[in-house]
Amino acid sequence: MKLVCPICGRTYEEPVQRCECGGPVEFERFTGEPYIGKNVWERFWDFWPVEPVLELTLGEGDTPLVRSKIGVELGVKLYLKNETANPTWSFKDRGTFLAMSYALKAGYRAVGTVSTGNMAASVSAYASRFGLDAKILVSENASDEKLKAVSVYGGEVIRVRGDYGRLYFESLKLGERLGVYFVNSDNPFRIEGYKGISFEIAEEITPDYVLIPTSSGGLFRGIAKGFIELRESGLIEDLPTLIAVQAEGCSPICRAFKEGRENIERFERPETVAKAIANPYPPSGNAVLKLLREFDWACVTVSDGEIVEAQKKLAGEGLFVQPASATGIAALKKLVESGTISENAKVVSILTGSGLKTLSHAEGGGIRECPLEGLEDCIRSGS
Amino acid sequence: MKLVCPICGRTYEEPVQRCECGGPVEFERFTGEPYIGKNVWERFWDFWPVEPVLELTLGEGDTPLVRSKIGVELGVKLYLKNETANPTWSFKDRGTFLAMSYALKAGYRAVGTVSTGNMAASVSAYASRFGLDAKILVSENASDEKLKAVSVYGGEVIRVRGDYGRLYFESLKLGERLGVYFVNSDNPFRIEGYKGISFEIAEEITPDYVLIPTSSGGLFRGIAKGFIELRESGLIEDLPTLIAVQAEGCSPICRAFKEGRENIERFERPETVAKAIANPYPPSGNAVLKLLREFDWACVTVSDGEIVEAQKKLAGEGLFVQPASATGIAALKKLVESGTISENAKVVSILTGSGLKTLSHAEGGGIRECPLEGLEDCIRSGS
Repeated sequence: MKLVCPICGRTYEEPVQRCECGGPVEFERFTGEPYIGKNVWERFWDFWPVEPVLELTLGEGDTPLVRSKIGVELGVKLYLKNETANPTWSFKDRGTFLAMSYALKAGYRAVGTVSTGNMAASVSAYASRFGLDAKILVSENASDEKLKAVSVYGGEVIRVRGDYGRLYFESLKLGERLGVYFVNSDNPFRIEGYKGISFEIAEEITPDYVLIPTSSGGLFRGIAKGFIELRESGLIEDLPTLIAVQAEGCSPICRAFKEGRENIERFERPETVAKAIANPYPPSGNAVLKLLREFDWACVTVSDGEIVEAQKKLAGEGLFVQPASATGIAALKKLVESGTISENAKVVSILTGSGLKTLSHAEGGGIRECPLEGLEDCIRSGS
Repeated sequence: MKLVCPICGRTYEEPVQRCECGGPVEFERFTGEPYIGKNVWERFWDFWPVEPVLELTLGEGDTPLVRSKIGVELGVKLYLKNETANPTWSFKDRGTFLAMSYALKAGYRAVGTVSTGNMAASVSAYASRFGLDAKILVSENASDEKLKAVSVYGGEVIRVRGDYGRLYFESLKLGERLGVYFVNSDNPFRIEGYKGISFEIAEEITPDYVLIPTSSGGLFRGIAKGFIELRESGLIEDLPTLIAVQAEGCSPICRAFKEGRENIERFERPETVAKAIANPYPPSGNAVLKLLREFDWACVTVSDGEIVEAQKKLAGEGLFVQPASATGIAALKKLVESGTISENAKVVSILTGSGLKTLSHAEGGGIRECPLEGLEDCIRSGS
């Protein structure tokens, strides 16, 4: 096992979670060849830092890549990577499965995470699947309703009073002392799991651009590492241009990128409809910044109005996603209009999580009422 | 196109939805061979009654078959077919996609359905995807919250005051007059779409038993037809034993089966936690009865208590399903104990829809509160 810090370059032989410099460590790059196999774990067997415990898979990954008509009006070829088709209905399952495979083999009996949303549900579910206890640390204002989708799997949910931002780092220290393996947003195994998204995309098309809703930075780093490893393995020729998309109301990475800074700063008073990507101080923010600069990639912000409009457009194609998942499509329009994305380009947007998870915030359509006797007239007079 | 009534044997050359005798028509049996292909539509190309419009697929089907530990304690090999990984998070998408493929090719500009749950969301989503108007007829007591997950896709939702049971038949008549293609629970194309579940199972294992939550009877008939066609094509040797599972509080098919009757009777005052399978007068009830008798299959009822317990067991394996989806697992225990299912048998249970759809009815676990400063003690003192 060899981990490296993408910020300062220090290396580690043991499975640390963060570098002494504060950076998020990651596994050295893997190279290999693809095999014939039923699932992404088997087909890209050379590329994982731990042997996936296949007898405990829930079928995460191998999600559909869907052709979108939204691209037609914008003059690009648009594909949607539908991660809402995962076992707990978000991309998190890919990383969770791989991290649990490690935790089990390393002999841990308990795992944890800091999240109130997709990741909390995913860790709670896979911990039960793997026979591990789960400590899910949530913020004090998380609603009971939202937490039901987490505790239902059996994980122990703990509402923590205090600075939620500090909790990420506190949990790692506590975990070490207590023998609880914390699988937070940019845990090194988690990042590796997300590479499967890149592998599966590359099996189907050669994208020019990939739009990635970005919060902690874990998903972005995983997809980047996936494509980089494919190129180093000689399996693709060119890297696609990756575009980090953030909500205007919480965009610490885009702001630092635009201002030419090397370090992100805490985004004060974050406010956006896209709760799943509203991390004001993303732990992988600086690592994402570095990637953006190194590969000449881009960071784009979108307004809540644009996000809600994009969410509706996606629903109009049959895909109901969380607001955060619609940010890629919200960004696409302005990227095409500004010429950043060229005509006829092949673009993939990642749909990160199911709209059912934020149903109470969704806007439904109008509902009409009709008596059975007058139904014919009612249908005739409809839209 | 040749349709046949499984009740009286009458045949039709035109795409009727029901037989003059009142029975639900179905396509004649298809035979063929499997091909290499990315999705179930391509691999079983010979078996569909209409060419699937692949450029409009949302990636329905090809759902994971998950090994379950629940089988271990019961002494059987249990596999879960996770249909919650479909685009609108239920098995309905398979049938909806095929029916929409037909509606589009037949020149319809509007489609409809009678449902307040999974099917309503599925038809609303795919209608938008296919560029068709949707008329979703729902019962007058459907909650606004539940309907949001339907109207969000753009379908027109109409709350109908009056006898909801009559609406199934009324909608078909109305649809013919108004040129709206109604894709109700046992529409012949819908049934064909469900065959994909059998095909995919047969690609992975040779099951001895398949447990099927049964309401209208459409899913049961589709899975049955799938396995029968595989056998007639020489692709499998023996049919598995199919077991229809109903909730005790609404079990018109099991009751008629037990009493040796040829026709189901309306189940008065249905009441069960498994709302998705609470059809008191299933339109395919008699057709299911006939299949059960012809192949010596079984019908089993489970109590609400057993259903809720099974739902918890499944969540404990990382799969959060609707109560209706847990009925198969609820039935398994008693089927093994009574000797109906023999030791070491290979059993598949169909998980029909996501637990997020009935989240407000789900029982979450307890939530603890801790101050950040006391978190270590809090985690130590936990379970």
